[in-house]
Amino acid sequence: MGHVKRLKCLVCGTEYDENEVMYTCPKCGDNGLLEVEYDYESIKREFTKEYLSNNKSYSLWRYLPLLPINDPSKIAPLQVGFTPLYQVPRIREDLGVSNLFVKDDGRNPTASLKDRASAIVVSKAQELGKTEITCASTGNAASSLAGATASLGLKSYIFVPKNAPKAKLTQLLVFGATVFAVNGTYDEAFDLSIKATREFGWYNRNTGFNPYTVEGKKTVALEIAEQLSFDVPNYVFVSVGDGNIISGVYKGFFDLLNLGFIDRMPKIVAVQAEGCSPVVDAVNGDGIIKPVVPNTIADSISVGIPRSGIMAVKYIKNSNGFGIKVSDEEILKAIKYLGTMSGIFAEPAASTSFAGYLKALKEGLIKGSDKVVVIITGNGLKDIDSAMKSVKEPIYIDPTIEDVKRKVMEINELFRRR
Amino acid sequence: MGHVKRLKCLVCGTEYDENEVMYTCPKCGDNGLLEVEYDYESIKREFTKEYLSNNKSYSLWRYLPLLPINDPSKIAPLQVGFTPLYQVPRIREDLGVSNLFVKDDGRNPTASLKDRASAIVVSKAQELGKTEITCASTGNAASSLAGATASLGLKSYIFVPKNAPKAKLTQLLVFGATVFAVNGTYDEAFDLSIKATREFGWYNRNTGFNPYTVEGKKTVALEIAEQLSFDVPNYVFVSVGDGNIISGVYKGFFDLLNLGFIDRMPKIVAVQAEGCSPVVDAVNGDGIIKPVVPNTIADSISVGIPRSGIMAVKYIKNSNGFGIKVSDEEILKAIKYLGTMSGIFAEPAASTSFAGYLKALKEGLIKGSDKVVVIITGNGLKDIDSAMKSVKEPIYIDPTIEDVKRKVMEINELFRRR
Ligand SMILES: Cc1ncc(COP(=O)(O)O)c(C=O)c1O
Ligand SMILES: Cc1ncc(COP(=O)(O)O)c(C=O)c1O
Ligand SMILES: [Zn+2]
Ligand SMILES: [Zn+2]
Repeated sequence: MGHVKRLKCLVCGTEYDENEVMYTCPKCGDNGLLEVEYDYESIKREFTKEYLSNNKSYSLWRYLPLLPINDPSKIAPLQVGFTPLYQVPRIREDLGVSNLFVKDDGRNPTASLKDRASAIVVSKAQELGKTEITCASTGNAASSLAGATASLGLKSYIFVPKNAPKAKLTQLLVFGATVFAVNGTYDEAFDLSIKATREFGWYNRNTGFNPYTVEGKKTVALEIAEQLSFDVPNYVFVSVGDGNIISGVYKGFFDLLNLGFIDRMPKIVAVQAEGCSPVVDAVNGDGIIKPVVPNTIADSISVGIPRSGIMAVKYIKNSNGFGIKVSDEEILKAIKYLGTMSGIFAEPAASTSFAGYLKALKEGLIKGSDKVVVIITGNGLKDIDSAMKSVKEPIYIDPTIEDVKRKVMEINELFRRR
Repeated sequence: MGHVKRLKCLVCGTEYDENEVMYTCPKCGDNGLLEVEYDYESIKREFTKEYLSNNKSYSLWRYLPLLPINDPSKIAPLQVGFTPLYQVPRIREDLGVSNLFVKDDGRNPTASLKDRASAIVVSKAQELGKTEITCASTGNAASSLAGATASLGLKSYIFVPKNAPKAKLTQLLVFGATVFAVNGTYDEAFDLSIKATREFGWYNRNTGFNPYTVEGKKTVALEIAEQLSFDVPNYVFVSVGDGNIISGVYKGFFDLLNLGFIDRMPKIVAVQAEGCSPVVDAVNGDGIIKPVVPNTIADSISVGIPRSGIMAVKYIKNSNGFGIKVSDEEILKAIKYLGTMSGIFAEPAASTSFAGYLKALKEGLIKGSDKVVVIITGNGLKDIDSAMKSVKEPIYIDPTIEDVKRKVMEINELFRRR
């Protein structure tokens, strides 16, 4: 058995047993996000520094004692997590900063951080005997769910906005999901999937609505902490749509604090697009989420009604973090900058966190000596059309060395003139 | 210093010191591929089972004593290798086989196995004091080189056919490479890049032409062997274009055999597309490579003049392996099958190996009880247009539960009628 003590409603404080509820608090409805509470004393007996250093599991399952899993024989086979934390030497030099790290979570099986949540949720579904799972998504949560269900032979029913990037739709279809391309927004797809859950009895993985999504995503923070030898960063920058990933980042550090692995919390920084910033506005304002009509190139964070918004705002404030907004232009520029300076390729919603970091540095909100981790949440291959907007055309040539020489001369000439 | 003893020409047998040559044998020209020979006795003193079990390097650098690196301070920072080897339980069950493994090398930084070669080559370039590197490529070698040079601040000059998949071109541009999109084939781009190397003094990473590409790619075999606790598989299936990856696979096992880590070689199986099969035809025929005009959907193995062909044929025959051809239709079907049955998403050139495995099983060339590893060499996100050909459209709906119910009923109806 796992070490979950209970689930507790963030709004009304009602406590539930693990097997009493599956989604949000029945009393509070959609707002009643449940926090998963653990028996830290019993975890401590199992999960020690020695346990970690002898651990030969190179995936998120290395943190099994900290996860809401009761039957480890039911866990999903795809190897999720254990992604690199880079020191990005060229970027450090270019910016004159000494303590920057970039966590590349685009290295997950379906190329986004969402794989972490899906791994936990499908394992939970197996425990519950559920064989049909549904989810609404801007794209990445869905493709991660579809990959995970494919690996286990479960059925997945997916609701995505019909204008989701082609690569994400293709992943879904290749993984054999039943894909409903909704003539509407992510917010509409979300509501629809919840109705369908009630109608068909499918298990629902929706971000926030399913309390275990945060528990999966927290593993990114567990890894960061372990990779930094539990020397906590000053800041962690996270792109925010629903606010579920950032809640997970907080929760991971929170668990480690309670277990005595770390001695303080990092400040968690939310980055959103200017055209869709309800969480940042709430954090920097009165704390109340006001739905918006989203308008940004970063499809994965184009979320007008942030489903984990309440939790995200609470956690960011608890951590003494802040929120920051960036333009679509800054998001695209950050794709090119990251790619050229580090070899990391981010999708727009993923470069958003980095764009926020650059802005915070420029505006003096953080110092060059601060220890900072920026999380890259999804691979640029997921949205080629947007990435193309961040770069120039290739140089078209005929297959002759003369043509090459001419073009190389032109390049050198350009360079000299600068 | 590393443990390289010498480089030896595969054709005329001439032996060279490491610092005497950089590319093919000067006497034999393009055919004179050089094999890198090691001082196994001195490696043995360093590289032991204990060395491995205490090794905290989770990348291809965990095999450093077996790599042609003289100055480890010069190695590239991207985390390459340490990719998962899956047991694919659903596929095993579906096919009635007991001992199949799939190595997902699409999990590398730029999403293909080529990252392994680029990691070694750019580190070598740093040792040689070279800051400008060039390469011709169907796309993946190039994007891996561009990612690696970006991480180090080296310049890259890339020659690709102008009809390379958009995702691969985009990666190149995002990584800041100078990209020459050649109005011609890969084979023409290859020749052009060699001319440009001579003209401009750039360091050249071309597959086969640079002897260290095989040394990088062999790390996939080292990992497979370690992941199988050095219990060697009966067969390893590899997609073949230039024949460099498959040569690397052989070389990795060959090194381990010489070091006493394994007691026999696996049989290495080359899989090519029916529309471009010079290596398979040579292996199954008189051993002589005859150039072809390629015609296949699998762009990465659309290679009419296999640059490591001689080496590949020699090694496949040494291993008692064989060659097998698959149709483009089988390649596309394998994408869908792998995705739906395991959650692994392969690009066409990568699903080719799996299509070959399915065919070999069906034709009785291998047994269901054989221990087999199939290598997936690149991620499906690299070529979405081809993947789309392997699947049906999503189900388009309006955001109403009525529309969902209607569509679910239709699906169930279809299911019942089957
Ligand atoms: C790549 C990427 N980045 C960031 C986010 C934002 O995560 P959340 O919606 O939990 O705030 C998502 C969510 O889809 C994502 O896919
Ligand atoms: C995905 C993929 N598979 C297979 C190959 C074939 O490798 P080689 O050309 O070394 O035979 C390549 C080479 O580009 C590749 O990119
Ligand atoms: Zn409540
Ligand atoms: Zn020679």
